Amino acid sequence: MKLISDNLLPDVMERIRSVQRQLKNDSIDAILVGSNANIYYTTSRFFRGYVFIPVSGTPVWFVIKPNVFEEEDNVVYIRKPEMIPAKLTEAGISLPAIIGYEEDALSYSDVRRLQAVFPQAEYRNASPALRKARMIKTEWELARMREDGVHQSEAYRKVTHCYKENMTDLEFQIEIERILRLEGNLGFIRTSGNLMEINMGSVIAGDNADVPGPYDFTMGGAGVDPSLPGGANGTTMKRGETVMVDMSGSFNGYQTDMTRVWRIGSIPELAYKAHECSRSILRECEKMGVPGTKVSALYDKAIEIACGEGFDRYFMGHRQQAPFIGHGIGIELNELPVVNSKSRDVLEENMTLALEPKFVIPGVGAVGVENTYVVTPEGLRALTVFPEEIQEL
Amino acid sequence: MKLISDNLLPDVMERIRSVQRQLKNDSIDAILVGSNANIYYTTSRFFRGYVFIPVSGTPVWFVIKPNVFEEEDNVVYIRKPEMIPAKLTEAGISLPAIIGYEEDALSYSDVRRLQAVFPQAEYRNASPALRKARMIKTEWELARMREDGVHQSEAYRKVTHCYKENMTDLEFQIEIERILRLEGNLGFIRTSGNLMEINMGSVIAGDNADVPGPYDFTMGGAGVDPSLPGGANGTTMKRGETVMVDMSGSFNGYQTDMTRVWRIGSIPELAYKAHECSRSILRECEKMGVPGTKVSALYDKAIEIACGEGFDRYFMGHRQQAPFIGHGIGIELNELPVVNSKSRDVLEENMTLALEPKFVIPGVGAVGVENTYVVTPEGLRALTVFPEEIQEL
Repeated sequence: MKLISDNLLPDVMERIRSVQRQLKNDSIDAILVGSNANIYYTTSRFFRGYVFIPVSGTPVWFVIKPNVFEEEDNVVYIRKPEMIPAKLTEAGISLPAIIGYEEDALSYSDVRRLQAVFPQAEYRNASPALRKARMIKTEWELARMREDGVHQSEAYRKVTHCYKENMTDLEFQIEIERILRLEGNLGFIRTSGNLMEINMGSVIAGDNADVPGPYDFTMGGAGVDPSLPGGANGTTMKRGETVMVDMSGSFNGYQTDMTRVWRIGSIPELAYKAHECSRSILRECEKMGVPGTKVSALYDKAIEIACGEGFDRYFMGHRQQAPFIGHGIGIELNELPVVNSKSRDVLEENMTLALEPKFVIPGVGAVGVENTYVVTPEGLRALTVFPEEIQEL
Repeated sequence: MKLISDNLLPDVMERIRSVQRQLKNDSIDAILVGSNANIYYTTSRFFRGYVFIPVSGTPVWFVIKPNVFEEEDNVVYIRKPEMIPAKLTEAGISLPAIIGYEEDALSYSDVRRLQAVFPQAEYRNASPALRKARMIKTEWELARMREDGVHQSEAYRKVTHCYKENMTDLEFQIEIERILRLEGNLGFIRTSGNLMEINMGSVIAGDNADVPGPYDFTMGGAGVDPSLPGGANGTTMKRGETVMVDMSGSFNGYQTDMTRVWRIGSIPELAYKAHECSRSILRECEKMGVPGTKVSALYDKAIEIACGEGFDRYFMGHRQQAPFIGHGIGIELNELPVVNSKSRDVLEENMTLALEPKFVIPGVGAVGVENTYVVTPEGLRALTVFPEEIQEL
């Protein structure tokens, strides 16, 4: 096994260095990465196996399958993780005294097994280190997300054409899914943890927006089956309703998140006002969102504006209200930071986040805009550039 | 909190009793179920929270959200799991001395947190008990899976009409996805563990079938992005190739799994022969598959037939071969039993499994049939009834 890094994408090495800085902060000698999202983050590839990242030096890929890599450089084939220490020793790499595992991302059984792989080592939770590194995107990652934003907008441009009178919300969603897929959407949304399950996104029409959900999404919806209670419920869309479209922006290993609202016929003034309130919140957050701003300040500002306009009981839901207005986003839909009142995170340059101040107006539906942003010295810059006004179907 | 079970679906109580029998076997006093699939299994609903199942008596649902249940009977609202012991004591339910957690399904951090909820209790891994209970389906569960089979077949009937000359495999898949969704497919495949990531299924044409994958699927395929390496790769489908369609049968909380093969123009005799070999394997397994048969015997028989016909190097892949020919299926795509040589499981009545003896013929593509079966005293009965011959596009 030769250890050279020349064949790694320079951007991958930048991500590795970012992880290594976090490991140093957390006094961890090495991590053994095993979750799908973090294998992709630390290699820009996906394989079954583990990525061994020492606090300094070059990572080693321990691959179980597929059998397509050249076994050289930093790639070592193994049948099982128990083979790793011997392979490291063989390569002259010292075994870590303190090892990190992804305690938040891997199952209890998987972590217990990995703990036994390095029985002499102390172990720590390395999930926070990886989450913190991933929060700030590299140039290559930002380029992927800009690409996502362009494709997602291109697909949203065709949303109006997907509509036919007397369609159900689900039929409408299915046509949007097809448009997204033809635009290159992978049809799969990576999420972290077990509080999110979703197909290609959410289309919510009328009062279905007021059905509380079990998941950590801002909006609920009944869904069409009790096993997956969220989003479209299969009822015919009617005049006087809004239709909120919050569909997947996953066109590569990264993703953007964008919500826009359509209407059928005319809707009450209240709905327009709440929608404009969402846009005012976004404009304020865009200005405030420079490096150094507290994430919680964005949330507080949103609450201040929404309550100031008297929309308290519609903000972030009506029968059930979500306690956050946005979230980090990248490889997974729900990354750090969480934009809520309790956040201790501070904005940094090249952090990406989706902001989605939304309102549920009983008898009408959901309104509000969601954009995905990157933090710049001039404030938040949108990656999802698409008209924000309520459009007619 | 009143504890009555009258309002629970009788079938749910049958599943609970099945879990309780497993708990008794494993000497576990109670389990605290927290994974999405098992909350659905033990309630036929989905909520964020926990299901407390004592080894005898009625389960209690500890619900965090949504706020839609009546707090009475067996439903108790909590903000966090730490509130559970006090609520149990309040209801006169004794705290378990030995408690089970889903160590294979929940993250290390989640299980550690739950262990602290019952600090006096010994803890055990309850994942095996739940997996074993779920392996044998109730009548209600079988009815859901029969429903899935009917819908999936109905959609597969339209597959031929999805094809247009010079289409890419991905364009073809997108039209099949739309047909499935219009037929009621939920567009989301629940899987267990982190060795499966997939959108609505897999369409593999020609030599893309010979690209090894990292996941625990029988077939690989390059996919269209390195972040999700599986299935269609976006190339134009050509004459002389087979197209294997293995798309989702998830129409309710359960699912069926079915694979059929189409061809473009004429394909070599070898491909037909291998396809017929797959059908012979299925016919043999159907006969053998009575209660009491070892699962490993199905695998051994498949190997015997495939090798006997000289197809060893094409069976279950070519550049990379999968070490199993089938899997249990139900709420999740990959349930017990795993149909491989090492299996110690024995077939029982009302067990469901998908068998997929497949071959990859270099230069042509993948062939073979997959059906989902239920074990009956007369052998395996297919839930996926659809012509098995290779059809022309």
